[in-house]
Parts: sequence; C-alpha cells; structure tokens
Amino acid sequence: MTVQDGRRLAICPGTYDPVTLGHVDIIERASRLFDTLIVSVTDGSFKKRPIFSTAERIAFVEESVAHLENVEVRPLGDLVVRHAQDAGALAMVKGLRAISDFDYEFQMAQINKHLAEDIETIYLPASAKYSFISSGGVREVAAWGGPVDDWVPPHVAAALRERMQRSPTAG
Amino acid sequence: MTVQDGRRLAICPGTYDPVTLGHVDIIERASRLFDTLIVSVTDGSFKKRPIFSTAERIAFVEESVAHLENVEVRPLGDLVVRHAQDAGALAMVKGLRAISDFDYEFQMAQINKHLAEDIETIYLPASAKYSFISSGGVREVAAWGGPVDDWVPPHVAAALRERMQRSPTAG
Amino acid sequence: MTVQDGRRLAICPGTYDPVTLGHVDIIERASRLFDTLIVSVTDGSFKKRPIFSTAERIAFVEESVAHLENVEVRPLGDLVVRHAQDAGALAMVKGLRAISDFDYEFQMAQINKHLAEDIETIYLPASAKYSFISSGGVREVAAWGGPVDDWVPPHVAAALRERMQRSPTAG
Amino acid sequence: MTVQDGRRLAICPGTYDPVTLGHVDIIERASRLFDTLIVSVTDGSFKKRPIFSTAERIAFVEESVAHLENVEVRPLGDLVVRHAQDAGALAMVKGLRAISDFDYEFQMAQINKHLAEDIETIYLPASAKYSFISSGGVREVAAWGGPVDDWVPPHVAAALRERMQRSPTAG
Amino acid sequence: MTVQDGRRLAICPGTYDPVTLGHVDIIERASRLFDTLIVSVTDGSFKKRPIFSTAERIAFVEESVAHLENVEVRPLGDLVVRHAQDAGALAMVKGLRAISDFDYEFQMAQINKHLAEDIETIYLPASAKYSFISSGGVREVAAWGGPVDDWVPPHVAAALRERMQRSPTAG
Amino acid sequence: MTVQDGRRLAICPGTYDPVTLGHVDIIERASRLFDTLIVSVTDGSFKKRPIFSTAERIAFVEESVAHLENVEVRPLGDLVVRHAQDAGALAMVKGLRAISDFDYEFQMAQINKHLAEDIETIYLPASAKYSFISSGGVREVAAWGGPVDDWVPPHVAAALRERMQRSPTAG
Repeated sequence: MTVQDGRRLAICPGTYDPVTLGHVDIIERASRLFDTLIVSVTDGSFKKRPIFSTAERIAFVEESVAHLENVEVRPLGDLVVRHAQDAGALAMVKGLRAISDFDYEFQMAQINKHLAEDIETIYLPASAKYSFISSGGVREVAAWGGPVDDWVPPHVAAALRERMQRSPTAG
Repeated sequence: MTVQDGRRLAICPGTYDPVTLGHVDIIERASRLFDTLIVSVTDGSFKKRPIFSTAERIAFVEESVAHLENVEVRPLGDLVVRHAQDAGALAMVKGLRAISDFDYEFQMAQINKHLAEDIETIYLPASAKYSFISSGGVREVAAWGGPVDDWVPPHVAAALRERMQRSPTAG
Repeated sequence: MTVQDGRRLAICPGTYDPVTLGHVDIIERASRLFDTLIVSVTDGSFKKRPIFSTAERIAFVEESVAHLENVEVRPLGDLVVRHAQDAGALAMVKGLRAISDFDYEFQMAQINKHLAEDIETIYLPASAKYSFISSGGVREVAAWGGPVDDWVPPHVAAALRERMQRSPTAG
Repeated sequence: MTVQDGRRLAICPGTYDPVTLGHVDIIERASRLFDTLIVSVTDGSFKKRPIFSTAERIAFVEESVAHLENVEVRPLGDLVVRHAQDAGALAMVKGLRAISDFDYEFQMAQINKHLAEDIETIYLPASAKYSFISSGGVREVAAWGGPVDDWVPPHVAAALRERMQRSPTAG
Repeated sequence: MTVQDGRRLAICPGTYDPVTLGHVDIIERASRLFDTLIVSVTDGSFKKRPIFSTAERIAFVEESVAHLENVEVRPLGDLVVRHAQDAGALAMVKGLRAISDFDYEFQMAQINKHLAEDIETIYLPASAKYSFISSGGVREVAAWGGPVDDWVPPHVAAALRERMQRSPTAG
Repeated sequence: MTVQDGRRLAICPGTYDPVTLGHVDIIERASRLFDTLIVSVTDGSFKKRPIFSTAERIAFVEESVAHLENVEVRPLGDLVVRHAQDAGALAMVKGLRAISDFDYEFQMAQINKHLAEDIETIYLPASAKYSFISSGGVREVAAWGGPVDDWVPPHVAAALRERMQRSPTAG
C-alpha cells in the first residue's frame, strides 16, 4: 500500500491542451503535498478532439515540470479511477478556478468516490493571478493571433504560434 | 521542516458547534492523506457566539475522533495561518459542501495564501449523504426538538437535547 | 390520508414580514395545483425578530389571499415538517428566486426529506417581474421612505409607511 | 378542464438517454402529487443526437415505471408547452440537481410561462444519493467500461454494456 | 485620445444571432452613457456557425437601432480588444443576465484586461422582463414553430419564421 | 441634464468600512469613464454598525483618491437612487468580485431601476489581484493582528492597527 511503505502518491489528471502556467502552479503546489505526483494526460476523449496530439501534450508538460523531481508524466487512457488505482494513488488533485468548475468537479468527485471508495479527490484553489486562465481561453486568444506568453510556458507559446499559423481555425 | 523529516502535518480548522458526522467524515478522510492531522477548534469568534463552550466543543470532537490514531485536537486562538505555521503544518484541510461555501472559502484561501505563501488550503468534497448537513442546520432542528441522531455522534445528540431543554432559544 | 380521500393539501410556509406581491403570486399559482393550500406564517424565529407581529403578518396575508377560496392562513410554531404532517399535507411549496435562495433551499429540502420521507418540497420559479422582490428589500426601501407600492398589496404598503414613520430604524 | 373534473395531470419531460435511478426517483415522487403523470420522452433534438433511439428510450422508461399505476410514457415531438397543453396538463415537473441545472431551468421556466401562462413548471430537488447522477455521467462511465449498475435500472445497464461494446466512442 | 477630445466611445460586441429585444434594451441604455456606441457583430467564430450570415445579422441590428443617433454597427473580425483599440474605444459594454453568464464573462474580462490594460469591460444588468431571453432560446422556440414576437423585433421574427420553414433543423 | 451640458456624472456608493485598494482600483477605473465621479459613503445603516465613523470613513477615502482630479467624496444619507438623482448622476458604479456579490447586486440593481428608470447601475469586474479583498476580510485579519498592508492604503492600515489595539473585538 502507498501509505504502509511510508510513501504517498497522487495523480493530477487533465487534457492539458495545452498546459498553462495555471496548471504548472497547481502541479508545483501539489508536488509538495505528496511523495510522488503523476501528471496524467488524457489520451483521447469522447467529447472533443484536442488540437495537440497526446505525444505533444505530454512533451509540453514534461518540459514544464522538468524542475520538479518527484513529478512524472504519463498518458491516461482508462477510466480515471482505474488509472489512479493502477498507479497506487491515494488521491486525485484538481485545480479549482471558479463556480462553473465547481459544479462539474463536484459531480465527478461523487461519481469517482462511488467507483473507488479509497481514492480521494482533493482541490487546490487556483492562485489569484491564474484564476482566469484556461486552456480554452489560451487557444481562443492564440487563434486570433493574440499574445499568450503570460499564460503558457515559452515552448508552448511558440508551438501555439506555429500551429495557429498553419491552421488558424483549429482552435 | 515537516517534509524533510519525512512527516507531513495538516490542520483541519473549524468552530465545530457542534461537530457533525459530516465533519467526522472529512477528518477521517483527511487523516489518511497526512501523517498527522490536527483538528483546530476556534476558541471564540468576533462574529457569533457558539452555543457550546470551547472546552465542550473540543471534548465532543475528541470523543468523535478517538478511533483515529494520527488525529489530535487543539484550541485555535490566533489568525489561522499563524496557528498553522506554529503547528508546522503543510496544509489546511476544509470540507466543501456547496456553492455558497465555495465563494467564501475561495476568498479565505486567497487571503491565507497571501499571508502565508507556504501553506496550502485543500478542499475535500463532502460525501453525498452528508452534503446537506451543517452545524447550523443541526442546531435549528434541535432547537425545535427535532431528531438529530442521524447527523451528529450519539454523545453530541444527547448534549444538544439537554442544552435545548434548558434554553431552547439559544440556537 | 390526503390522497385516499381524493383531496390533496399543501402548505406554503414563510415568515411573510411582510407579505409581498411575489408571495401572493406564488400562493395563487400553488393554489391551482392543490385542493387546499395552507399559508403557514412562522410564529417567532431563533434568528431574527420580525418587524410585524405574528397577528399582523397573518392579517396581512389573509387580506391578500381573500379572493382564493381554497387558501387558508395559519400560524406555524413547530418544526415545519411536523406542522406539515399535522396538517395532513402532501407537500411544502416554496418560491424560488435566485441562486442564493437555491443553495439554502436545497439544503433545507434535504433536511426535511430526511425528517419526513413522505412530504415533498416543491419549488415554483418566481415570475420574472417579481424575481427581484423580497421582504427584506421591501423593508429596506420602506425604511428610507422609498415607495413600495409596486411590490406589496396596498394595505401592507400603508402599514409599512405608518410603522417606518414611528421607528425608522426598526427595519 | 383537468381541475374541474377533479383530476390533475402533469408531464415529466426529458430526453432520458438513458433513464437513470435519479429520474425514476423523481417520477415516483411526482406521481404521488398528481392523478396522472405522463413521462414525455423527447423524440429527437436540434442540439445533440441521443445514443439510444426514441423507441429504445421509451421502452427503458416504461419498464422502469411499470410499478406506478398512474404513470404513462409518451413521445414528445413538439414545443414542450404545446405538448403539455394538448395533454391537458396543469404542470411540468422537473428534477433539480445543482446550480448549473438551475440557471438553465429557470430560463426555460420563464420562456415556457410566457408561451403558456396556465402551465406551471415545478421542481423537485434530487434526493441526496442521486444528486450527482446524470445521463451524461452514466454514458461517460459506461463508455470507459466502468460499472453503472448503481445508477440505472438493470435492463438499462445491460443495454449500455451491449451498446458500448459495439461502438465505445458513441458516448 | 477619445477622452482628450471630450468624446467617449464604447463598443458593444456580440454574435447577435439574431439580435433580441434584450440586446436592443442594453444598446439603448449603453448609448446614453457614451458619446458614440459601436455595436460590433462578430464575423465568424471558431466555435459555432451562426444561422444567419454576418450581413444578415448586421442588417437586423441596424434596423433595430435606427432610432439611436449615436449608435453605429460594424463587423468584428479580430481579437475583440484589438478591435476596440482600433475603434478608439474606452470600454466594452456587455449585458449580464445570469450566473452562468457571469463566470464566463468575468474570465473574459480578466483576459481582455490583461491584453489591453486601458480598455474597461463594463456590465449592465439585463432588465427583469428580458432576463430570460437569449438568442439561443429564441432559435430553439422558433425551430419548433413557437411564437418569438415578444422577444425579437418584428423584422427578425419574420426572418426567423422564413428561415425555419426552409430548414427547421438549422437551429 | 448631465448629458445635455456635455458632462456625465456617476456615483460610486458604499460603506467603505474601511476603503480597500480594491475600492481605490474601481474608483480610478470608473473616474476615467465619466466627467465627474462622486464616491458616496453611506452615513449609517439599518443592518450593521461600521467600526469607523462616517467622518473617519470619508477622510480615509478622500486621502486615497486625492490624486484623482474628477473624484469627489460625499456622505450618503438617503435612498441611494434619490441621492443619485439629487447629484444629477447618470449611473451608479459598483465593483463586482464574485458570485455571491452578483446575486445581491443584481437584485438591488432591479430594485433601483424600478425606483429610478433613468439611472443605470453599471458593474466593473474587480481586478484579479484584488478579487479576494473585502472590507470584512480586512477587518477580520486586522482583528487578529494580521498584516493588512497589501490590501488597504498605508493611512488606513495604521488606523486599523490603532483601532484594533484599543478594542480588538470591535471587528
């Protein structure tokens, strides 16, 4: 067990399309609460098609969290609670930005608790300066050629610029 | 440091007037995430006068968490972040029940983050079956002589019954 | 049983301090859904002291609903679900105005459902034109000598004017 | 008129894709408030394509409410208020789960009130244990092969399993 | 500068698919707060395809605001803050209807403030009687052949009727 | 009329107990939208007793806005819309921080619109960095001897420290 051997592990699941400085802030803060933090990047979705591939999104996150020794990035291609159980996780960490987040998040937390009683969902409030940033907002501004450098790491900003030049309507 | 010596400590602050089964559920779940969990019972308030004394409220919590080895109960008579720092805490744990909670909690989390950058506030969503229970609701039902046995531990229900018989308008 | 004898009864509980046109709208609409509707006027409260006495508040409601044959007004001096059970009610009807209402109402509905499984709480959405009216808002405007004639029945407006002249800070 | 002949009729409209135990709970509770309750299953939509056909969804509801004598299931292929008027309904009953529900529901209630003054929309709060269940959540868990048996009737769980095996991305 | 020459200019951006009486109300009220108000009609979108062309939507707005001397209608085909800066605007005016609006609007306001510090977003609360009207609701009712004459100007109602007859599923 | 003579005037009403940097930010931004901005400081309240006198609160605001040429500070001892009309105001400006603000604010805006059709309420979203600051939060932190220097102007921080030393329970 993750606790018995004195080590606590959590996952931080998301689509990360692309990773923002808000995500990085949550990951940094969460990494101090657990011995190991796995950033789980959803590999496909039934609802919407990401603009970056799973490999690209994982690479963007990896470069963004390279300075955090106890953080690891993995693809997530399963029901999130099964993925968490397979990883030996004690908890799933989510950032919480606003009220619209909260409703959906609360519902998912209850569903996941029902599916896996032993795995907690815990929320960290977004930092004030990142509280209005989302991957969707970043994509929308980038699609219009607006500057996103204050909201994503430099390597992501560069990738967004190149992607949007090629196909501006992809966002 | 709490992390350097391999031990993580968190506090779970509140008025607990009185402690409910919803509180106990959050405390149990939080106690599995940290090495030590301190339940910090506010010792007085500028806004409202509790119906039970600090000593009574602490005793009610202590009896409710006696089965949890890594949980300790303490009075809280300071700015909550200073109390957390003095205890060597890494985080403050709060239960999150509903949207009205969220707004106030989010504001307090930002204030506390500003006052003590190194202490996280983390939220655990209330379990569905406890999502409608609050100390205030319990006091209101008890004040009318209604049954509160499903919402508070037995020793608290007994104390509420006795208290309300003596001064029903105290709630 | 209320249903077995072919008659359905509901209560419409509140403080009605004072009754507004928004209340009257909800009562009229609810009275068409049930055979008998009892408007239950809370007789005292642990939290706040009404500006009108129970007798005054009941009289104001009675005059406002005199045109509705199947509506009756009664004092409410008990746990609301026991009052509903004693009246033989099938349901409690509440108006729902806004999101801040909703949270509190939802919590009370769950508490009451737990206390009396057989009594439903049902909500009617406030009409658009009354969606911003509350007894508290009416009291506040009246306290400053502002006109409240569009928000309360004429006899209530007159009583508010007279009350506020005598003790404007009572609101 | 529905009231003049001593009988009250309401409809309970929805997509039911598929019917959940939360829906069944609302239908059971609403059926005790009216003489006849019609569950109206939307026959197509301009916004999203259901994963089950109208015939399948009606059959799933019918099997789920077979024990309720005064409940009938019908397709709904019109503006919902015209459908309600044609059925001779006094009211439309909706379950209310959360704040995100509430906003949309409140807006629809005002629109429908404007289109048909004589038909009420009434809300029943979801039971605590079903407050996090939605058809969408059920479809998402089922799409990943997760267990949905606690959230839908057995015949629906079986149909979901079979449907998802054939085309997992349909959810 | 717009202020230095004693004239203040604002824009009122939106998709207006189609313009509603709620929009017209906001535009009329905003036109009294500024010397010039430009209604900026988004020319395409990355997210959803309007049912009316940009030319049609502009013509509908122009006919609706012809009585307002200081109001002008323009297409908007850029990042909204750049469009506002190019127009020499001091502010962007938005109507605010409900809580679901608020979250999204607040996030966009923060993003836009970050992109253009000197341009304010200001909100006008929707009038009570229009608080439930949206272009989406109007399209949905029209798609089912319901009456929308109370919610849009006559020329828009006529256009919606004609459009829906030709392709009812376009809504 | 304020518009006919080419000058637009607005008021910015509040209790300012005490004025925060969040208030100052809103006042600065609003002062750029109008020719004259009056900060109206409520002179007493029916609900709660301020910790600073009206004269103190006015002096604190005056010192905080001394750098803004077109801003004036006045006591507000009347129904707010009558005060606005007497001042010749076109609009009342409010800062908007969070969802709990919004509900109350929206209700007051509708009430005030009903009382004075020609006066608009307009909202400016709080800047991200001030979005969690309120006078109440500042008083609470100050009451515990916590630092409030990042949230209020220096002269207010000094006054709070002095006040709280004398009577810490006044907050």
